[in-house]
Amino acid sequence: MEDAVPVLRRTPGTLDALLRGLGPTWTQADEGPGTWTPPEVVAHLSHADRTNWLPRLHTILHGDGTFPPFDRFAHLAASGGRTPDDLLDEFAAVRRECVTRLETLRLTAADLRRTGHHPEFGKVTAGQLLATWVAHDLDHVVQIARTLAGVQRNAVGPWQAYLRVLR
Amino acid sequence: MEDAVPVLRRTPGTLDALLRGLGPTWTQADEGPGTWTPPEVVAHLSHADRTNWLPRLHTILHGDGTFPPFDRFAHLAASGGRTPDDLLDEFAAVRRECVTRLETLRLTAADLRRTGHHPEFGKVTAGQLLATWVAHDLDHVVQIARTLAGVQRNAVGPWQAYLRVLR
Repeated sequence: MEDAVPVLRRTPGTLDALLRGLGPTWTQADEGPGTWTPPEVVAHLSHADRTNWLPRLHTILHGDGTFPPFDRFAHLAASGGRTPDDLLDEFAAVRRECVTRLETLRLTAADLRRTGHHPEFGKVTAGQLLATWVAHDLDHVVQIARTLAGVQRNAVGPWQAYLRVLR
Repeated sequence: MEDAVPVLRRTPGTLDALLRGLGPTWTQADEGPGTWTPPEVVAHLSHADRTNWLPRLHTILHGDGTFPPFDRFAHLAASGGRTPDDLLDEFAAVRRECVTRLETLRLTAADLRRTGHHPEFGKVTAGQLLATWVAHDLDHVVQIARTLAGVQRNAVGPWQAYLRVLR
């Protein structure tokens, strides 16, 4: 817990510093058909905060441990027509509320060992869910930075060979 | 130019939002022998700003186009014993100065087509150098987020299969 919360708390500010006010060259970039632009990734993080992490944790702690379904693409409809900065504001607000609710739970070591049932993996613990929330944030920070770097793919010329993010 | 500067300007704030005040669980993590911790990556970015990007650009615009040598490991000695937050402060200051100097150059399209001699690649343009500066920033943002995510590798349990950053 004391390791997870500091990262969860920092993600909105990290993405805000990286993306707010950037021009369409950057904010409209994706990695090809079926991939997401940086603002769409931000919308996905808000959506996951609302419908995935805490609801699943609640199911482990107070329900029958069966996870509610999570639609990994629902945010695309919800984010249509909204500005990147608006999506950043929304994520900051949603995340702030989630971190507050998480801290209010005052999870114990015993709580973190309690288990739920993942539709694919079977038994998973509350601690694994929390660690995954953190790693999922960082996975999408990587995705956004990689998508932005891709905008420069041709412009860097021969340096592409030295840039791991472009390989 | 109008695409590059906004990203170059944002990188220190992005890394500050992500790293400032984080505990040693995160700031002392690396990806194995010979890899860097997040603060060491920040020190590398400061070092590259000081000794690589603008000096090479200067050589293209005003020198004989032969790049000065760049030691990709010199920052490790320079960063020893300094706190992560101190390294973030240094990077913010160095980058601010570099962006100001870059803007003062008021590079034209003709300037960006001028060429220098890379020891390995041969002829490269000022425009490619500038694009590489941007992509290099993003490459290291990816590296830092990936290094932090690696801290959670075992803790996420079976979810590792879903997290690209951990594969």
